[in-house]
Amino acid sequence: MKVLVTGGAGFLGQRLARQLLSRGSLPNSLGVQETISQLILLDVVPAHDFGDARVRVVTGDIADGALMRQVIDAETTSIFHLAAIVSGQAEADFDLGMRINLDASRLLLDVCRERGHVPKVVFTSSVAVYGGALPDVVQDHTALSPQSSYGAQKAIGELLLNDYSRRGFVDGRVLRLPTISVRPGKPNKAASSFASGIIREPLNGENAVCPVSPELRLWLLSPRCAIESLIAGHALSAQSLGASRTINLPGVSVSVGEMVAALEKVAGAEVAARIRFAPDPAVERIVKSWPGAWDVTRAKALGLSADASFEAIVRAYVEEELPR
Amino acid sequence: MKVLVTGGAGFLGQRLARQLLSRGSLPNSLGVQETISQLILLDVVPAHDFGDARVRVVTGDIADGALMRQVIDAETTSIFHLAAIVSGQAEADFDLGMRINLDASRLLLDVCRERGHVPKVVFTSSVAVYGGALPDVVQDHTALSPQSSYGAQKAIGELLLNDYSRRGFVDGRVLRLPTISVRPGKPNKAASSFASGIIREPLNGENAVCPVSPELRLWLLSPRCAIESLIAGHALSAQSLGASRTINLPGVSVSVGEMVAALEKVAGAEVAARIRFAPDPAVERIVKSWPGAWDVTRAKALGLSADASFEAIVRAYVEEELPR
Repeated sequence: MKVLVTGGAGFLGQRLARQLLSRGSLPNSLGVQETISQLILLDVVPAHDFGDARVRVVTGDIADGALMRQVIDAETTSIFHLAAIVSGQAEADFDLGMRINLDASRLLLDVCRERGHVPKVVFTSSVAVYGGALPDVVQDHTALSPQSSYGAQKAIGELLLNDYSRRGFVDGRVLRLPTISVRPGKPNKAASSFASGIIREPLNGENAVCPVSPELRLWLLSPRCAIESLIAGHALSAQSLGASRTINLPGVSVSVGEMVAALEKVAGAEVAARIRFAPDPAVERIVKSWPGAWDVTRAKALGLSADASFEAIVRAYVEEELPR
Repeated sequence: MKVLVTGGAGFLGQRLARQLLSRGSLPNSLGVQETISQLILLDVVPAHDFGDARVRVVTGDIADGALMRQVIDAETTSIFHLAAIVSGQAEADFDLGMRINLDASRLLLDVCRERGHVPKVVFTSSVAVYGGALPDVVQDHTALSPQSSYGAQKAIGELLLNDYSRRGFVDGRVLRLPTISVRPGKPNKAASSFASGIIREPLNGENAVCPVSPELRLWLLSPRCAIESLIAGHALSAQSLGASRTINLPGVSVSVGEMVAALEKVAGAEVAARIRFAPDPAVERIVKSWPGAWDVTRAKALGLSADASFEAIVRAYVEEELPR
């Protein structure tokens, strides 16, 4: 089987690729394990190929039909569609967000439909599809009401994937991801970038600015659990999903103040003191519109799980990413 | 002010046009009444112009950018976007539904954005955005879960209109219409076509086939109330709508069996006996996924209203449409 990962050079794409190469196989639509013969990592910048002969690195624009017809053929049994313009950037550049988050997602589905082989397609969605007056714990039947263009584009992608699946064009599943924390590396243009930065920068001996208040509640997932969830979500059978292809993934509900306390507990008061609070209304408006928790009964029944606590997330980050 | 009606040759488009010409003015975004200097009726077939010098009939494809740039300019203060591929047809011809219900709606919003004058845009949506396991009375915060391509395309249109409004590209409002009954004329390709046919055909001395069971509950609105709702929805101020531009319009909740009983009460047992029940699983699957009622607290608070009863709807149809 061939596997395509869009956003394959990105943080999650690279981690997913490493996991897929190490596992070596994935279940197909019949639930039968198939050996991964080729793993295409598609992105706007070249992905690392891990020196693995199975990896094919493709660089280009996922909104380009010719390119997408080149990377998806009738042997492309599984697609992980991770490429996206993040929330802050989609708010700043409306056209770019529409082109990548909406048009390219639809193009991907249309190319699958042309091929006619009904591949498994995993879409990642986000807490950002919710908004407005939300209950403390969002339910599966709570209406989507995105308060950002990114959230609207993701919600539209969900509707498309569900309808293309219902019509039998793809065997799709949407995994709504909590905010990923702690991401290693540099800040990005996501409105939620601080949710990693306020842990990562202090641990690296740097100061961090937190643009939201300590009371704000976030719904978080570690990178490791995110990758496990993507692979587990891919493995689910179409029958187990039923009429709705969308799953709210389990996460950890934590306030920003509790995140700081967890950092202090793991790394000490001196490290936690490197965080300065300086509210940024633009960031706060977007992040406040996201749910701080959602009901995960369905996800748990499907066998999906999250981290034990935010403290466990910080400890895992320290072990995996800080080489001292 | 110029007013554009897409689907202007259609049943609702023509009725709306007649009402707008008779009123002669509409409130602009500041709530100030403006005289309608031009009313453009755009459709794939030529609309009637009512012999009125204010009417400009334009025939063409609403998915054509050049055409849309011709009919929307900086004086187009108000747009009623009624054109759509109906549910049964969008299910039968996926590409056509996507092109008209999704691409053309987005094009309309993009042309408004290019013009930069933030016109009022009224989108019509539908009960078909709902589906799956629904409560008896759908609430404003109930998740959309369309079970037809038409419903998915309408739900996407709603998300676009809300985001384009939030960003200040248009002053939009989405009116979710109940199923319209009783439509005069001929059956159409909507899955709900029978909801008019089982009343209209017997009253015309013809037999009618009902493709769903008598227990199935529908949420209905008369043509007259639908037009009143479109004009009232257009008049609402942006402030009164707040963050959500979508309104579930009031309707009448009635079972198919109760519809037949109302027909019998108004026109006699002989007329009602012209209805034969012959279930059509394809139609029943779509129509059963729609809500039989939704909460109208918000719509009523905004001053919108529905018919008194289905019997009143049938009596009004007899008075208005049957010339004996």
